[in-house]
Amino acid sequence: MSDGSHEGKSESAVGKVYLVGSGPGDPDLLTVKAKRLLEEADVVLHDKLPGPEILEMIPEEKREDVGKRAGGEWTPQEYTNTRLVETAQQGNVVVRLKGGDPTVFGRGGEEMVHLAANDIPFEIVPGITSAIAGPEAAGIPVTHRDYVSSVSFVTGHEDPTKDESAVDWEALANTGGTIVVLMGVGKLPGYTDELLKYGMDPDTPVALIERATWPDQRVATGTLDTIVDVRDSEGIEPPAITVIGEVAGERERVVEFLEGV
Amino acid sequence: MSDGSHEGKSESAVGKVYLVGSGPGDPDLLTVKAKRLLEEADVVLHDKLPGPEILEMIPEEKREDVGKRAGGEWTPQEYTNTRLVETAQQGNVVVRLKGGDPTVFGRGGEEMVHLAANDIPFEIVPGITSAIAGPEAAGIPVTHRDYVSSVSFVTGHEDPTKDESAVDWEALANTGGTIVVLMGVGKLPGYTDELLKYGMDPDTPVALIERATWPDQRVATGTLDTIVDVRDSEGIEPPAITVIGEVAGERERVVEFLEGV
Repeated sequence: MSDGSHEGKSESAVGKVYLVGSGPGDPDLLTVKAKRLLEEADVVLHDKLPGPEILEMIPEEKREDVGKRAGGEWTPQEYTNTRLVETAQQGNVVVRLKGGDPTVFGRGGEEMVHLAANDIPFEIVPGITSAIAGPEAAGIPVTHRDYVSSVSFVTGHEDPTKDESAVDWEALANTGGTIVVLMGVGKLPGYTDELLKYGMDPDTPVALIERATWPDQRVATGTLDTIVDVRDSEGIEPPAITVIGEVAGERERVVEFLEGV
Repeated sequence: MSDGSHEGKSESAVGKVYLVGSGPGDPDLLTVKAKRLLEEADVVLHDKLPGPEILEMIPEEKREDVGKRAGGEWTPQEYTNTRLVETAQQGNVVVRLKGGDPTVFGRGGEEMVHLAANDIPFEIVPGITSAIAGPEAAGIPVTHRDYVSSVSFVTGHEDPTKDESAVDWEALANTGGTIVVLMGVGKLPGYTDELLKYGMDPDTPVALIERATWPDQRVATGTLDTIVDVRDSEGIEPPAITVIGEVAGERERVVEFLEGV
């Protein structure tokens, strides 16, 4: 962002921040509104999560990467919050571009509260979450009228400052619904063990979707009992989504005719 | 759909079906891909759920309403399934346009299996679900790093042929995560009672979002203990989304600066 881009703007008028979801990475899965805001914004604050194809659509002079600091360390959320307020106070239309949806494990909730506390008008623009689009790209519907009345999304990557997991796997096992774990490849042995301990059927279908919706997406399937071995033999790596439940078994019924990835 | 629109097409080549989510109703929340497919498709099979603004974007000659039969009764899913296969077998590029996302309580799972069973190539194009966009439009993030590690989506409108509710409210109460109930205004007294019975704090914040993301959206807030009275005094009517959990309390911290609806 150059100083030149501010010419003609009133220093006194506050701008506005759009918290925008970029979807799972395919520019075609941006919303019409997100695409237009990327064109119209004065400044786009982003990290690496929207992916290269979408980031390349943004003119260089508008882009500010708040994902890394010069030293290569991760930027604290406080820095992002400060830049959001500063750029809006300079009168800019600011897009805060976030991977997936802004409030599905995306810290949009924290940013929104920080903006309001600093008197900055804001708007949330939802994005396609990979928690839904990822399974779909593998031929898996997250709900099914015949046998699932709920779906739960869980993060496998909790706040590391929490002492113990806040996820109640016993309760999730008992819902009887689909469980989708985001960023849950590394901890797969831990939570599959928990779910088995709490009585989930060892034959429950499980799918792992690596780099969901990307051109190099890979899918591996098994059961609650076998999926850790499948992960290891197939070499499934993060980022990946885990889908646990009867719906994961639908893939084999449709995969021959599934197109799109 | 007139016969004339098929001139020049090969009778032998099978077409393709796109199961496309239209999002919550605002044309700006269509994905770029959904918008393009509506322009390029030969036939668009739809019901009323995408809403008037999006349906009006589709040229009349492409539109086929599978949501109602001539007699005014609801169309059985079997009729939709049959029309999907017939139109694709005629060589058409077919869009099956669905409100929200195709597989979040959208019966996309059933349609997908029917297409594959009939050798029809298909693709799923995700849409913005009102289960996420609705709360956001009310200033409510469905997750929050500080105090929620999961979010569960539940339908308040189950298959009426099921004898009893398949939703395990005790398990949902025990997850400790956000609960979002779709189409759950009518049954609000039933499931709030269940959640209280199973030990959820009566002071848990609850929000009702009527006609979420539409220009005439209304939001009413209370607690697990008061929300039924709030619904009645405010006259909240379907369609509406219920958000239960600490996140529902974020609205009051931000609503003064929230724009967009």
